[in-house]
Amino acid sequence: MVKQHEGAILPFIRVDPGASVPMFRQIQDQLRTAILKGHLPAGSRLPASRVLADELAMSRPTIVRVLENLKSEGYLETRQGSGTFVAKDLPRPLSRRRWLSAVGEETDGSAPRLSRIGDLSRQMSADIGRVEYRPFLPNHPAFERFPFAVWGKCWNAATRGGRAAGLGYGDPAGEAVLRQRIAEYLALHRRDPCDPEQIVITPGGHAAFALAAMVLANPGDKVWFEDPGPLTVYNLFRTLDLRICPVDVDTDGMDVASAAEQYPDARLAFTMPSRHHPLGVTLSPAGRQAMLDWAQQNRSWIIEDDYDSEFRYVGPPLPSMRSTDKHDRVIYVGTFSKALYPALRVGYLVLPPQLVGSFRNLAGLMSRSVTVETQLALAEFIGGGHFASHLRRMRDLYTLRRAAFVEAGRAALDGLARIDCPDSGMNALAWLEGGLDDAAVHRSARAAGIQCFPLSDYTVGAKRPSAIILGFSGVPADKMKFHFGKLAEAMRGSR
Amino acid sequence: MVKQHEGAILPFIRVDPGASVPMFRQIQDQLRTAILKGHLPAGSRLPASRVLADELAMSRPTIVRVLENLKSEGYLETRQGSGTFVAKDLPRPLSRRRWLSAVGEETDGSAPRLSRIGDLSRQMSADIGRVEYRPFLPNHPAFERFPFAVWGKCWNAATRGGRAAGLGYGDPAGEAVLRQRIAEYLALHRRDPCDPEQIVITPGGHAAFALAAMVLANPGDKVWFEDPGPLTVYNLFRTLDLRICPVDVDTDGMDVASAAEQYPDARLAFTMPSRHHPLGVTLSPAGRQAMLDWAQQNRSWIIEDDYDSEFRYVGPPLPSMRSTDKHDRVIYVGTFSKALYPALRVGYLVLPPQLVGSFRNLAGLMSRSVTVETQLALAEFIGGGHFASHLRRMRDLYTLRRAAFVEAGRAALDGLARIDCPDSGMNALAWLEGGLDDAAVHRSARAAGIQCFPLSDYTVGAKRPSAIILGFSGVPADKMKFHFGKLAEAMRGSR
Repeated sequence: MVKQHEGAILPFIRVDPGASVPMFRQIQDQLRTAILKGHLPAGSRLPASRVLADELAMSRPTIVRVLENLKSEGYLETRQGSGTFVAKDLPRPLSRRRWLSAVGEETDGSAPRLSRIGDLSRQMSADIGRVEYRPFLPNHPAFERFPFAVWGKCWNAATRGGRAAGLGYGDPAGEAVLRQRIAEYLALHRRDPCDPEQIVITPGGHAAFALAAMVLANPGDKVWFEDPGPLTVYNLFRTLDLRICPVDVDTDGMDVASAAEQYPDARLAFTMPSRHHPLGVTLSPAGRQAMLDWAQQNRSWIIEDDYDSEFRYVGPPLPSMRSTDKHDRVIYVGTFSKALYPALRVGYLVLPPQLVGSFRNLAGLMSRSVTVETQLALAEFIGGGHFASHLRRMRDLYTLRRAAFVEAGRAALDGLARIDCPDSGMNALAWLEGGLDDAAVHRSARAAGIQCFPLSDYTVGAKRPSAIILGFSGVPADKMKFHFGKLAEAMRGSR
Repeated sequence: MVKQHEGAILPFIRVDPGASVPMFRQIQDQLRTAILKGHLPAGSRLPASRVLADELAMSRPTIVRVLENLKSEGYLETRQGSGTFVAKDLPRPLSRRRWLSAVGEETDGSAPRLSRIGDLSRQMSADIGRVEYRPFLPNHPAFERFPFAVWGKCWNAATRGGRAAGLGYGDPAGEAVLRQRIAEYLALHRRDPCDPEQIVITPGGHAAFALAAMVLANPGDKVWFEDPGPLTVYNLFRTLDLRICPVDVDTDGMDVASAAEQYPDARLAFTMPSRHHPLGVTLSPAGRQAMLDWAQQNRSWIIEDDYDSEFRYVGPPLPSMRSTDKHDRVIYVGTFSKALYPALRVGYLVLPPQLVGSFRNLAGLMSRSVTVETQLALAEFIGGGHFASHLRRMRDLYTLRRAAFVEAGRAALDGLARIDCPDSGMNALAWLEGGLDDAAVHRSARAAGIQCFPLSDYTVGAKRPSAIILGFSGVPADKMKFHFGKLAEAMRGSR
């Protein structure tokens, strides 16, 4: 009897003493899975813990702990005197057939009945948000230099004191202490003071853009969009059923004059005035004023995406557009995804006073608040001065990496591409030469384990010369030469 | 010189040795605020650290640490040989006038130019999401019993291993390991197996409702809404410009027959079949089948809000509606706000296969993902069996609190109200007698420090008898009598 059940269990259990997961957890997870998959039938009897301990060469207390845990989860049950059994009344294991046959269609093959927005998102690429962290990935912070220990201390400090109070729904606009810290940061580092009451915390920059689009524009309304511009923001606006008005970007930034002439009636303008992505240019003072005047005259709104202006390597930081906005038309969006890391999912809006109520209410209705623990830890991190010093350290590090990137790149890509590295941000461009095609280079680089984005992916209307966007912030200086070698090879191979 | 500056600084500094914030942080924060408020003018000289140390009776190293931190943040600067100064080039302190004068209007007094959704959210109550944690607050988990230590361990474990990898954008549908754990939990505890690929993690239940409304219904589309029903969900749907179709709820739950007759063409039905909030009734098997048939015939969708079915005190848990859905019409929504705590901001959808793509893409576009650290910690918490045992402990605790609540309530409110305590959930009703008005009782109870909600706040159409909703899960058993005493007094006072 027991023998038979040993045979039924042990094949499923592979314990790896080297794994980061403790061994008892490995056994527990594998037993659970075996039960859920039906490999261990409901009601079947388990060997005695002593037998299992021998078989798995584990201590008996460990095995007992595993069995107790699985009992507490309801997978196992004990019957007086007769041992441990797989719980009788377990759900039948799910067949994957039904799922695997699903391709976004009803069983009769028709399209599901969705809203306009639902249809648009159904047509979207499923890759959205799936980023592969490989060399030269754009906007890749130097994760390995993140002060994990300090961050852990801040999290513990923030969640230790007065925890019970902190377990409830937070302020829909974000925790007051974090809004205060962000206002202080903006006052000092962006030279742009605001009242903390003008700030609304969002789960990342995209959530801020989504809120702005929903509060300020109706389906079908026009939005100025810099061409080229960030694909994910383009996809967001398109999915929210806005009409994208592509506006050309030259060395002075967005061509505001032609935008105002072609699309005077747009409700929104989306712009990255201090550092355009991916071109790295800045919007001229004249262009900024022209956009502010247009917005004021047409009661339109400007969404200022300031996402990587933190990293400027030449000269003082540029003023934000918001800081010169006399008529309260600018919705400023900041994020911690680049300065800290994307997984944090914290961004923020700085709003004109007359818009705060609408944004706060819609944010509150759509997600109540952002994980409070994370907000408090971040406030602690900023308040303790760790954010400012982390930024300073990263600025220094990226300065070195940028120099190494340019040197290694110019050498390795000579005759293949011209490196064009702006004064700020985390990314550069490589303008392809000799008729290389950026999409083809992207594909063959990816096959070689290099992650670069083709400029054509950012292009809405007018086709541009071929270029690839390369991130330098995530690559150690002494690795640049090596990775550029692989990239050059991939470029040649793409012909 | 120095003396004068002491006068300028010390009044702003109050150190409380008993506070949870370390003293150096108290001084640092107060100095920073004094500078930002302009109480310490830019360029003004600070006393020597020795002098400050004496004045504040702190060790000199502590003061030096404070000054160094404020330097690193840019608030202070040192000039060779001449000491420490408030940084010259600080932003002028922000006048609050402009902000305080703002009431959601342009400076000329006109309404800002908003979208339809923006206008609707502008008209919303600013109180949304602001919950006061006082006795008898509905849906209030027993925060003081939350296993903080275990949770902290899970967070540390989840964020220690392979951290760098965990810093990037997560899966837009939520981390695979968390979706796996939730699927296992649903299979066991809701007897409703699903494929983890059918799950999309959201920042709380409201975000799940918002996604469903956006993907499945166009502005102006009709949604069945149980009357009475949760005010915040009503406000969410109304703000997203859906047409609310109130459907009466009796002891068998939603009156599906009359809904199907009055509003056959609705796109959505929002229902809480296993435990209606606030009435606590369950939808009859016949009603469930009728709703599923209607949805199938009209290609409409059912949003099943299963939010507090975890807590059932009599008999086995009821099957979810999703588990009997043969035609893939049910969008199942779960949340951890009640089983764990609201500040976590984690909820999830279990979707029919044909809807996964649209939901995943819109979720990915609108917020990329949910804080990854929180997701990994939660997966660890569930996988380690802590979630199941916490639920069991809370179920036992709430059983006791529920009994004490009923006993104390019936005694204290005799002649004032009839306590009506359902078999599941965290809340009960008190049907008011002797012509008491629930809104009036709410107000006077609140004045007495008791938080109960009037049934009239949940009522969309048909006026109901006066009742107040009382939460018992957050009140220790031995405090019931005391708080009911205050409530009874408040009731009498409300006449």
